[in-house]
Amino acid sequence: MLRIGVVGCGAIGREHIDRITNKLSGGKVVAVSDVFVEGAHKVGDPIGATVYNNSADLVNDPDVDAIICTTPGFAHKETVMQAIEIGKPVFCEKPLTTTAEDSMDIVEAEIAGGKHLIQVGFMRRYDKGYRQVKEMLESGEFGAPLYLKCTHWNPEVGTNYDTPMAVYDTAIHEIDVLHWLVGDEYESAQIMMPRQTKHTHPDLKDPQLMFLKCRSGLIAMVEVFVNCRFGYDINCQIVCEEGVIDLPSPAVPTYRKSGGLTTPIGHDWKKRFIEAYDTEIQEWINSTRKGEMNGPSAWDGFVANLTADALVASQQTGEVVPIDIGVVPEFYKK
Amino acid sequence: MLRIGVVGCGAIGREHIDRITNKLSGGKVVAVSDVFVEGAHKVGDPIGATVYNNSADLVNDPDVDAIICTTPGFAHKETVMQAIEIGKPVFCEKPLTTTAEDSMDIVEAEIAGGKHLIQVGFMRRYDKGYRQVKEMLESGEFGAPLYLKCTHWNPEVGTNYDTPMAVYDTAIHEIDVLHWLVGDEYESAQIMMPRQTKHTHPDLKDPQLMFLKCRSGLIAMVEVFVNCRFGYDINCQIVCEEGVIDLPSPAVPTYRKSGGLTTPIGHDWKKRFIEAYDTEIQEWINSTRKGEMNGPSAWDGFVANLTADALVASQQTGEVVPIDIGVVPEFYKK
Amino acid sequence: MLRIGVVGCGAIGREHIDRITNKLSGGKVVAVSDVFVEGAHKVGDPIGATVYNNSADLVNDPDVDAIICTTPGFAHKETVMQAIEIGKPVFCEKPLTTTAEDSMDIVEAEIAGGKHLIQVGFMRRYDKGYRQVKEMLESGEFGAPLYLKCTHWNPEVGTNYDTPMAVYDTAIHEIDVLHWLVGDEYESAQIMMPRQTKHTHPDLKDPQLMFLKCRSGLIAMVEVFVNCRFGYDINCQIVCEEGVIDLPSPAVPTYRKSGGLTTPIGHDWKKRFIEAYDTEIQEWINSTRKGEMNGPSAWDGFVANLTADALVASQQTGEVVPIDIGVVPEFYKK
Amino acid sequence: MLRIGVVGCGAIGREHIDRITNKLSGGKVVAVSDVFVEGAHKVGDPIGATVYNNSADLVNDPDVDAIICTTPGFAHKETVMQAIEIGKPVFCEKPLTTTAEDSMDIVEAEIAGGKHLIQVGFMRRYDKGYRQVKEMLESGEFGAPLYLKCTHWNPEVGTNYDTPMAVYDTAIHEIDVLHWLVGDEYESAQIMMPRQTKHTHPDLKDPQLMFLKCRSGLIAMVEVFVNCRFGYDINCQIVCEEGVIDLPSPAVPTYRKSGGLTTPIGHDWKKRFIEAYDTEIQEWINSTRKGEMNGPSAWDGFVANLTADALVASQQTGEVVPIDIGVVPEFYKK
Ligand SMILES: [Mg+2]
Ligand SMILES: [Mg+2]
Ligand SMILES: [Mg+2]
Ligand SMILES: [Mg+2]
Repeated sequence: MLRIGVVGCGAIGREHIDRITNKLSGGKVVAVSDVFVEGAHKVGDPIGATVYNNSADLVNDPDVDAIICTTPGFAHKETVMQAIEIGKPVFCEKPLTTTAEDSMDIVEAEIAGGKHLIQVGFMRRYDKGYRQVKEMLESGEFGAPLYLKCTHWNPEVGTNYDTPMAVYDTAIHEIDVLHWLVGDEYESAQIMMPRQTKHTHPDLKDPQLMFLKCRSGLIAMVEVFVNCRFGYDINCQIVCEEGVIDLPSPAVPTYRKSGGLTTPIGHDWKKRFIEAYDTEIQEWINSTRKGEMNGPSAWDGFVANLTADALVASQQTGEVVPIDIGVVPEFYKK
Repeated sequence: MLRIGVVGCGAIGREHIDRITNKLSGGKVVAVSDVFVEGAHKVGDPIGATVYNNSADLVNDPDVDAIICTTPGFAHKETVMQAIEIGKPVFCEKPLTTTAEDSMDIVEAEIAGGKHLIQVGFMRRYDKGYRQVKEMLESGEFGAPLYLKCTHWNPEVGTNYDTPMAVYDTAIHEIDVLHWLVGDEYESAQIMMPRQTKHTHPDLKDPQLMFLKCRSGLIAMVEVFVNCRFGYDINCQIVCEEGVIDLPSPAVPTYRKSGGLTTPIGHDWKKRFIEAYDTEIQEWINSTRKGEMNGPSAWDGFVANLTADALVASQQTGEVVPIDIGVVPEFYKK
Repeated sequence: MLRIGVVGCGAIGREHIDRITNKLSGGKVVAVSDVFVEGAHKVGDPIGATVYNNSADLVNDPDVDAIICTTPGFAHKETVMQAIEIGKPVFCEKPLTTTAEDSMDIVEAEIAGGKHLIQVGFMRRYDKGYRQVKEMLESGEFGAPLYLKCTHWNPEVGTNYDTPMAVYDTAIHEIDVLHWLVGDEYESAQIMMPRQTKHTHPDLKDPQLMFLKCRSGLIAMVEVFVNCRFGYDINCQIVCEEGVIDLPSPAVPTYRKSGGLTTPIGHDWKKRFIEAYDTEIQEWINSTRKGEMNGPSAWDGFVANLTADALVASQQTGEVVPIDIGVVPEFYKK
Repeated sequence: MLRIGVVGCGAIGREHIDRITNKLSGGKVVAVSDVFVEGAHKVGDPIGATVYNNSADLVNDPDVDAIICTTPGFAHKETVMQAIEIGKPVFCEKPLTTTAEDSMDIVEAEIAGGKHLIQVGFMRRYDKGYRQVKEMLESGEFGAPLYLKCTHWNPEVGTNYDTPMAVYDTAIHEIDVLHWLVGDEYESAQIMMPRQTKHTHPDLKDPQLMFLKCRSGLIAMVEVFVNCRFGYDINCQIVCEEGVIDLPSPAVPTYRKSGGLTTPIGHDWKKRFIEAYDTEIQEWINSTRKGEMNGPSAWDGFVANLTADALVASQQTGEVVPIDIGVVPEFYKK
């Protein structure tokens, strides 16, 4: 049984606690912390967890084997660095940190420590569909991938959602999953702004067409359209030398009614990848218990920061912005 | 140029005249007739056709090479027999006649005349989809067909539409096209009545599940549901030894809107097979000009009568009703 | 934590032990038994379970809260009756027993005991697709279901698979899930044998068309074709007064290759419903811990026996065979 | 009956002669010409057409009401200018001419003549699918189109097919149909070269991602991949403010076989739009007989030249190349 401490008892923290307690196998939440300690008590007391009002004490609790960090992004670095210092594994929600520099600090600390400890919460890699696509790509039957197209269509956003969030909050999932999917590294980023929907607001460019070029020459196009109205619809089509592969949409009943044959499209992004969240945490528990770390690494968190920054830079100018991740450290090579 | 006389200037007659005049090649309507002679003038005068108030005069007009018979079903026999007598080809709308006996009279007259003259207006055989399915079946790649399922779903009918019409007017198309599709002969018929829709009326059983057993053992199931509400939707799935084939639905744009990805289903049966009607008449013109007759024959018209009668008999009892078409005459073997 | 004893350490027993131990939450296998005691040790020892060479001792073990019975069908009754006597919950794999009479004995014993203890392992009710279909039906938006069609297509079977097994081993899943899906009771059964595939053998009729008529008049048609070659393909289409609903197939990547756009169809029946198996056991653990029993009941097990027997009787004659389940006991009404 | 003269008796000329003679209504080929006069005799003699060895004589033949020009592109201008001079309608295969300057000469001559005479052979506008999409766009139910994506996937090309041909011969169809579809004008062009397929050759960049920006801000992306191996596959998805519309693929039977459910994709570009070719010529005959001209105009031919040249310029540099069509002449406004 992996004894887990959860840092940050907000919505996502509570969800992870619930799935570990009621759905998954092999883990137990033994400690929780939150600067807002009453919130921590509310979730920790019913399950008999020790309650802390700060991250450091939880990390140092000898009964805690591993940490899940679900605080706001700006607070991740502190917890992660504490855990590295003491040598405990951390599952850290995305983003790893809010700047490429901070993420690089973590990368360097982890390498210095010599132990793989950090996994970043990019759950798309745990979606069954993406995994099947990756398997098909790796089978060799489709030849090299040449370009690919993704839609990240979302029904609507509030007025607090602005142009950079289309990258940092939305395309960030494609940023992580795509280079993993094709086994390549990004080299440059560019954004084109097509005609804008009337359903957007002054601080938000919507839709946006994002392009990520890889070292192999592969171009990944990501369509972000967050006020598309009709639903939350994630698609990914990969054009290869010998054929084309399409990510499946969720299996739902189709129906004939009122002059049409319809496949429903959900509106809720959380439900779209709900099984992926479960798998992500289950596999983290399993691998952590074995002393392994297989998921998205601190390095992947750093790459995501750098790539997102390049895309945001291009939002202003429309120009091609280079992405220089440098040499992938030996430590992170698979 | 095939000089055509059209007997019967109702809706379907006018449609054939229009397609021959404005869309198809190689035919010209030179004469029209209708007992309601004013109606005949209305369609015949603008295209310079001779107008008759009776079928016999039109059939005997030496300027008429071939006849299209679009009168009500009860009147078909007279025109067709006149044409056989004088040796002129006829395209006769379905049903050939309203009884198996009358159709058999035509069959015998045609055989006696020694010339293939009669084509019955079963247009489904000219639908591109059914033809492609037939080609696939005949390729041998799917092995023997074992059973098949068709839906004949129609949005709604009026209160004048009654239980036998589900066979005589609706399933009649499947009756003809299915034995042609699988190259087999019907042996027995049966109808099951499932739970009835609240949208039907006292004189109509709806839906009905019809079963036609063939000599090979193949069972064809036809679902007739004429108040299905959602659209006119024709499907046909053939289960074979080595695989399953599905008739395509018409190609229409799909769209994402309001929480769904929808393929529209039309409501209008006429539009569903509009290209088939054109092809049917064009090929009839082409083959008639060459002195050939390739379409559904008088024999097929007789088989349709006999089969429909057996199904209607089973509507009352639910019992299996034998269909005895006897030996297919040499004259009609392909 | 629910302390579980597993009776029967064959393939399916080992799978349930694995999922309880490594995937699911809230349960722990504390005892195992098998008449072949070495097999029981092989699976029980590594997880520290007590090992028995008989069912009775395991059932009576005070450390065992609940039992999973995965012995061969003929041995189920003994274990289940022992458990009822001592008042412990049992998850019993299908079939509950091998005869309707034996299942009725269990039903009567459970009623006499006054406590809901028995759940039968019909896992289709836990498939996400069927559940979504049921929800749509119950929404009322589709009106009453009138008839439905299922395919149970399986790529191939060995020569030990014979005609009755098409019901007892294959259609048995549809028998359970369909009456649950439409909330109705079977009244009669019938089987038609269409043309037979050349890929079958003398002891097996294949394919078979099975018909189950319900009290409402609804007809459920189940196509069982166990040598269909192309894959394991479960479909279910429900025709209702206001529309038609289709069970989804699993979500898999589609691909363009070699002149076609293909959606893969698996060959393995176990993988098709793998998530349903997990959900089935997880929900059984959850409800058992709460002292509830929500799944397919002993009564459902009895109904399945009776319905399967009627279908098998019709395999010989082709006749309609009545199914008389009598009055559903108050005890089992939901 | 429209009396038609066909200039150029190559493959495409012969096809148009065949469809006018054997499939369509209202037209008759009365004259043919070819510099290779034996070829002209071969097709003209059997249908009793006058045979010329030059375009001018055919155009001036008083028995010729209208001209179809199917010579190689470089020879179009001469025939078209002759026809304008004498005031006869011309259906000219694409491209109108091989340079924007030559096309502008035709535009100016046609305007000077004051009569709409020239239709260019962009047949996609006659495809039922594109027409349905246009109707849906114009219904207003989808709001403004914001961006769109097309695939022009072709199985393979020979080594004589080079980089500019990806625009001039392939994307040229999208160039014409897209601005018509969305009712907009191109403003700039750009091409990105993604990773290249190993199945291409030194003189051909393949695939290519082409971008056309319109005055409204709409971006049209055209993926040209002419060695995609799997088939000829034309797709077009239009992302609008209120939903997304997809061009349908042709209706073909789907089949289950060998572990998959497959929709065949043809390999032959000619068959893909065969009905569109028929409709194109039929509607040209119909409108010409009424003294109208509704199809793609000389101006559209000019716009296609200019747009194609801009795309080809970007093939070298990857830069955005402006497209300056100037003010659309009143004469060509719809
Ligand atoms: Mg995550
Ligand atoms: Mg007809
Ligand atoms: Mg089970
Ligand atoms: Mg053309």
